[in-house]
Amino acid sequence: MPEGLTLAELGELGLLQRLSVHAPPGQWSDDAALLPNSEHQQWVVSTDALVQGVHFSEATTPAWSTGWRAVAANLSDLSAMGCHSCAGITVALAAPGSTSVLWVEEVYGGMNELLQHHGGTLLGGDCTRADQVMLSITAIGLVDPDCLVRRSDGQAGDVLVVSGPHGLSGLGLQLLLSNKFKAEDFSETMIQQAITAHQRPQPRFDAIAALHASKPQGLPWRIGGTDSSDGLRRSLELLGEASGYRPELDPAALPLPAGWQNNNLMQSLCLDGGEDFELVLTLDPAWAETFIQALPGAKIIGRLGESSGPPCWADSKNPLPESRGFEHFN
Amino acid sequence: MPEGLTLAELGELGLLQRLSVHAPPGQWSDDAALLPNSEHQQWVVSTDALVQGVHFSEATTPAWSTGWRAVAANLSDLSAMGCHSCAGITVALAAPGSTSVLWVEEVYGGMNELLQHHGGTLLGGDCTRADQVMLSITAIGLVDPDCLVRRSDGQAGDVLVVSGPHGLSGLGLQLLLSNKFKAEDFSETMIQQAITAHQRPQPRFDAIAALHASKPQGLPWRIGGTDSSDGLRRSLELLGEASGYRPELDPAALPLPAGWQNNNLMQSLCLDGGEDFELVLTLDPAWAETFIQALPGAKIIGRLGESSGPPCWADSKNPLPESRGFEHFN
Repeated sequence: MPEGLTLAELGELGLLQRLSVHAPPGQWSDDAALLPNSEHQQWVVSTDALVQGVHFSEATTPAWSTGWRAVAANLSDLSAMGCHSCAGITVALAAPGSTSVLWVEEVYGGMNELLQHHGGTLLGGDCTRADQVMLSITAIGLVDPDCLVRRSDGQAGDVLVVSGPHGLSGLGLQLLLSNKFKAEDFSETMIQQAITAHQRPQPRFDAIAALHASKPQGLPWRIGGTDSSDGLRRSLELLGEASGYRPELDPAALPLPAGWQNNNLMQSLCLDGGEDFELVLTLDPAWAETFIQALPGAKIIGRLGESSGPPCWADSKNPLPESRGFEHFN
Repeated sequence: MPEGLTLAELGELGLLQRLSVHAPPGQWSDDAALLPNSEHQQWVVSTDALVQGVHFSEATTPAWSTGWRAVAANLSDLSAMGCHSCAGITVALAAPGSTSVLWVEEVYGGMNELLQHHGGTLLGGDCTRADQVMLSITAIGLVDPDCLVRRSDGQAGDVLVVSGPHGLSGLGLQLLLSNKFKAEDFSETMIQQAITAHQRPQPRFDAIAALHASKPQGLPWRIGGTDSSDGLRRSLELLGEASGYRPELDPAALPLPAGWQNNNLMQSLCLDGGEDFELVLTLDPAWAETFIQALPGAKIIGRLGESSGPPCWADSKNPLPESRGFEHFN
């Protein structure tokens, strides 16, 4: 291979930016890709790759959960575009020849279980040999082009809304890894809730249905949004960058899970734990009120300010405490 | 991981057979997946994964060719379903952090070059860290559901037709690896032709256009077919198994490239070299005649017999000489 800058040095975001010259302008600026279609609906396609030792491991992820989570991540991207459901997925599996067939069958069983819960079929794919297990999944869904959810559609004065609490999946991962957190610090219910959140995340198609059901008459369809696969902070950054308005987070409204202490460590999990796969939306204030009535667990967490800038606290306008986001090549 | 049968023991075909219980019956029995659509056209989606050291290596595949070939393989699958063109692709890239950015950019440049030649856009995808470079590509195309090409649509008495010669890509690979074949045994033209065939294969959308242009009036649209990504022999096996009729190959009509000696070694490359990405079709005899007039390089190579069975020679009915096909987990 040639010398020069490495992927580790450039980072994933830099790489995607460089590679975007190979796609039409704006093509890569959202969670999934619209196919250039037709009549009243547009096909949406999303691709995600998961690598053993990077995105999952035997210590934290049973085989069925590896499959479930891989599909959930993709369906979450579809919901973050405004899709109601998934039509189907394709799966590329790469694995060492020494991989147990049972393990692979359980992975696909987990995928199938997710699809049976949330809709969609396993359309096809490919299997091949590699030194490391990797799953690449492409999900395809339909959306009404007049009812899209786009990162860039937020406006100053919009309210920031999440479809549910943040941090559970991150806590579940840490408990499974026996890092930082000790199980004796938490109730049995909190532990189970966190591990379930990590191993069995749910794509929030129900939140899209609730948006349709709760839209106040007379308001146009205009929703900014993304999913929180890489953490709540990263979602806020994306919504701020795409809309041009600074996300202001109400410190009293941080979407901590029920029963959590509001200390620095738990706040950090809430902001940066990642893989919660909730929707983070910017809504007209009137719609935000009807939406949180329609979707139990949804919560208003702040607003989009008048100016541009990185996410900050709504009261002090100080930036959120520093933390490292999810960076794929480190 | 649990004990038991390994992927190496089961093999790719066995694995796909086992995993097909997770998809609707028949869903995985063709080259690509139909999306459950609508009006006059159906979306078709195909996913293929390529792994460094398995499907490509620095010795045989420059970066641009790695990208070109990865996309060509997928577009070939679309053509093998009857698509005229590709709407777009998504790409999942997994690579070590130490990978050169330049190399990755050249890979995507090769993909883009292929798309500019054959149509389609880079719709999106994902990048992540792994110990080994892997590309997983999903291609999406449109097809008229009344003009499909399916593996199973052959009938007894149909003529076997290839869109071009077979073996060039395999020879190119062997020459690049300096295995078995020595460059001094071939003319400079033959060497260049073989290496180009390996590094820059062309999906045969032009063959689909020629099928439409050459269809005799009064004949229904009925075409059996697949592409020869895993070798001519494997294509014949697939067409035979799916149709229930035995492919009978005319030994005098083996589609050897121009200038090749007809000896055992070159026959073996022609049958099992793989990655030629030609279309292998079963056609009504009248259509076969008009088709080979319409598409330079296309050739009639045999017929489908009355009974079922593995591919054989048309004269003796002896099975084709044994050889190992492309087996992904060995």
